[in-house]
Amino acid sequence: MMLVRINMRSALVALCVGVLLLTLFWSRCGELSHRPISSTIGSVLSNALSDRGGGEEIECLINGEYSVACRRDRDQVYLPFSFIQKYFEVYGKITSTDGVDRFEWSHSYSKIYHPKKKYDPRGTFTTFENYNVEVRERVKCISGIEGVPVSTQWEPRGFYYATQIAQFGLAHYSKNITEPEPRVRIMDDGEKVLGNWIVSKDATISREYDSELKANVLKFSTSELASSQVWLKVNITQDFVLSLNIMFKPNSSLTVVLQNKDKKETVYLHYVTSNQLIYAQDDHIYYGIGTETRWRRITRDLIIDMQKGWALQDRPKLKSPRNKFKISGLVVSGRGAVAGVRVSTSEHTAHFFAAAGWLVRAQRARGGWPVPARRHVAPGAADLRPGWHSAMSQGHGISVLARAYYRSGDSTYLRAAQRALLLLDVPSHAGGVKALWMDKYVWYEEYPTTPPLFVLNGFIYTLLGLYDLHVIEGENSISLAKKMFDDGMTSLKTLLPLFDTGSGSFYDLRHFTLGISPNLARWDYHATHVNQLYLLAGLDPDPILINTARRWEGYMQGKRAAHN
Amino acid sequence: MMLVRINMRSALVALCVGVLLLTLFWSRCGELSHRPISSTIGSVLSNALSDRGGGEEIECLINGEYSVACRRDRDQVYLPFSFIQKYFEVYGKITSTDGVDRFEWSHSYSKIYHPKKKYDPRGTFTTFENYNVEVRERVKCISGIEGVPVSTQWEPRGFYYATQIAQFGLAHYSKNITEPEPRVRIMDDGEKVLGNWIVSKDATISREYDSELKANVLKFSTSELASSQVWLKVNITQDFVLSLNIMFKPNSSLTVVLQNKDKKETVYLHYVTSNQLIYAQDDHIYYGIGTETRWRRITRDLIIDMQKGWALQDRPKLKSPRNKFKISGLVVSGRGAVAGVRVSTSEHTAHFFAAAGWLVRAQRARGGWPVPARRHVAPGAADLRPGWHSAMSQGHGISVLARAYYRSGDSTYLRAAQRALLLLDVPSHAGGVKALWMDKYVWYEEYPTTPPLFVLNGFIYTLLGLYDLHVIEGENSISLAKKMFDDGMTSLKTLLPLFDTGSGSFYDLRHFTLGISPNLARWDYHATHVNQLYLLAGLDPDPILINTARRWEGYMQGKRAAHN
Repeated sequence: MMLVRINMRSALVALCVGVLLLTLFWSRCGELSHRPISSTIGSVLSNALSDRGGGEEIECLINGEYSVACRRDRDQVYLPFSFIQKYFEVYGKITSTDGVDRFEWSHSYSKIYHPKKKYDPRGTFTTFENYNVEVRERVKCISGIEGVPVSTQWEPRGFYYATQIAQFGLAHYSKNITEPEPRVRIMDDGEKVLGNWIVSKDATISREYDSELKANVLKFSTSELASSQVWLKVNITQDFVLSLNIMFKPNSSLTVVLQNKDKKETVYLHYVTSNQLIYAQDDHIYYGIGTETRWRRITRDLIIDMQKGWALQDRPKLKSPRNKFKISGLVVSGRGAVAGVRVSTSEHTAHFFAAAGWLVRAQRARGGWPVPARRHVAPGAADLRPGWHSAMSQGHGISVLARAYYRSGDSTYLRAAQRALLLLDVPSHAGGVKALWMDKYVWYEEYPTTPPLFVLNGFIYTLLGLYDLHVIEGENSISLAKKMFDDGMTSLKTLLPLFDTGSGSFYDLRHFTLGISPNLARWDYHATHVNQLYLLAGLDPDPILINTARRWEGYMQGKRAAHN
Repeated sequence: MMLVRINMRSALVALCVGVLLLTLFWSRCGELSHRPISSTIGSVLSNALSDRGGGEEIECLINGEYSVACRRDRDQVYLPFSFIQKYFEVYGKITSTDGVDRFEWSHSYSKIYHPKKKYDPRGTFTTFENYNVEVRERVKCISGIEGVPVSTQWEPRGFYYATQIAQFGLAHYSKNITEPEPRVRIMDDGEKVLGNWIVSKDATISREYDSELKANVLKFSTSELASSQVWLKVNITQDFVLSLNIMFKPNSSLTVVLQNKDKKETVYLHYVTSNQLIYAQDDHIYYGIGTETRWRRITRDLIIDMQKGWALQDRPKLKSPRNKFKISGLVVSGRGAVAGVRVSTSEHTAHFFAAAGWLVRAQRARGGWPVPARRHVAPGAADLRPGWHSAMSQGHGISVLARAYYRSGDSTYLRAAQRALLLLDVPSHAGGVKALWMDKYVWYEEYPTTPPLFVLNGFIYTLLGLYDLHVIEGENSISLAKKMFDDGMTSLKTLLPLFDTGSGSFYDLRHFTLGISPNLARWDYHATHVNQLYLLAGLDPDPILINTARRWEGYMQGKRAAHN
């Protein structure tokens, strides 16, 4: 049905004449906005239209290439947002306040955090308190053995990706600072709080003092029968981070029983003495916790463990599961001992040190954390072959290790951080991550391709790692980290303008090094650039940093550089 | 008056009920799109509206900063072009074909010329056949002595600007190739055509053979009395380029009488033996033609001379004066001789050689054409002080001189062109025009500031000059021009990507060298870039040239580089 815009009062006149010639009129009204109508009503109507400009449709021919149906009111032409959105990639939605609808247009979709104070390597890492690494889809699960995420980003079978692990650590380190103290509920500490464990008839438990833990522990032993179990019934809601010390003999396991409060669904999380990463079938999800028979403490976010088990079975992600589920029981079987069993809102420090620990253990002789996955970065640049290093991994790794040293005083972390510097001085073609701009300015490459790409955000993250280490080593020390930071800042301040498009930023400089179309940064990366620059502007007074940050923030509201 | 969108058939029902309650209805219809109406008609109407989505107004909040009045039809929001145009700097107008209006949206306003064949320095210079240098407002007038334009671009008193003079020459050289043969009307050649000169009683004329011109000439002599004249009555329309040989003693003059065919307006163009550039009062416009007493040929576009005289008096420019005016007479007074008097549609070759001649005469020992005006180019870069050189002047100058040599065989032009190369190898700080990118890639600077700006279009014009000279010298010659061209092409192909914004191009690289906001190229400069690259792509097979030209042409239709 054709719609035409008419003016009310003229319409009264026009249309009520029209009633007399209804059929004639009907046959015409579809034509109104296209050609003049000869009949009386027609002309009256078309006058009504042209007098008032009306809101008739008008064809918009876009760059002589295609047409869009627009509206017109006198000399003003109105274009549909659906076209504008696609043509310019802007964003908008209709919102409603007190019954009044409004259309909210936004040029970009990302957020800028203006730092309140100077960046401090002892504090949060940039804005990572907002990150939640483990929920990312490209995180397969949290390893039961290492306690760190396993990435599927470029390799579906999963691998340890130092950048992701470090981000996991830095996110928890930052949350630990910004979030309120977690609620902790002791389930069994062997002293004040003793769990009321139910023991099946062919199983045994005993409480003994353990000289290594210097605490009373619960020893348990069950038979081969599946029915033979030691079971602690609980009813815990809201808090889902379980941690406990365990010392398991082979073929032992800990099972956590989760129940959905609404539907009577039950999920079993089995932590078993195997080296398999994860395995899931229906409501049974298995995490290998390795075959170590010494005491160790495991810390598991049960909701994450459940969700990753479901993802493995392509079950849709459950919205706000922390409100829907409760912990209804713990079951141990096999032979071993447990101690210090508790559930908390969070265990950020444990997660952080799990990342730091992995970084120390996984670091190679050259100080690197090689990526075992093949990576195709850009057309015209050779693929990175498994074993490649990333300056971002090195930098993030250093940021974790420097904080771990600061928090623990354990110099193992400091030495690992310092060792991580070495690859930053090794050229990409020699297995390192160092590129030179025009044989002159050093660039720490997130993706050490040949020719180099000069990715901006990864380079700045590397600079932050260098700054972190320098500060933790002691601000006044003349360290290698300091020299590398200063060299990198010189490069950044020199080359930063080359990332400016006049309306946004480039993700990298591939257009220069590969001679191909530029790779524009999508808004979330652009926002990262801006956030990073505001942070660095607090460390270096050179106006190019703050000026660029402000100009680039303006681009996010549709401001543009001037043209001549 | 509030307009609401309704559907025709519902309107018939709704409104013809409405007639019964006309006054009530009127008081309501202004409210329709805001709140429900309780009356019968109202609710019928508002149903009609909501059913059909209506066309009510909706506030658009732009980036949370300001509001724009938009229209809404169900979930589609329509934004006024007046806003879109300002926000994104796009262009559009309503056009009408066979009574059907259409809105034509264009992303840019410039035109791309796809070269039909390989560029040839003997042929047109790029697209300059479309240029009309003398009509530009920044051209004060065409010098009566030099026959070349005088610029007021950076100096209101006017000065000879080699770039402008060369463009004047190249435009006429190109028009001479692309335009049809001009119509020529002989007014007096001393032989076949003899003008019927009217001689006042105290004046004399005689026809004599002149051994220098090897032709019969008209000698004349008048007394001091203003009334004493030698006058040729004519009636010439459409063609206004007058040329003749003159040999004037001091205090002689040639006056051309122009008449407006409609209004009885008469304009007098006086060419007087003085060194004053131009002087105008009311309908009398004076051009100094110098005090030379030898034979020389002057060629004047009478309409341009008239328009510039008017501009001097701030008289509005006359539209299509060539149709409104006619030449009604020539008057000589003083003592001297004239010969070969004619009027033509155009005298492109004469104008071209006027430019070439000036370039030869004005060239300094270092091979340059210094600009006598002070020039402020960019904030943060020191002003160019009077006497600065421009690589664009050198390049354009070479393009003119190479063609002048090709057309005339006169090696004076060739030597001048070769001399013009010298400054291209002299650094800007030493009075030359050479900059180096990262101490590595040579750039011929249109504006040799410190730090350098790396203006793109001027650099490419310089390359064309080098190519022109190389080809005219003989394609196989290993000349300095060839080496400088090759070095420049290497720089261009290396740095070209740095001018790519992903949606347009930069005019220069000031953001890199001065660390300030980028200087985007407005569309006509962007189009120049694209035209230049298409031309160069015909000379150099490196795909970066043709690929960049195509991508940049796409930007003019709103295409953008991809983001990650």
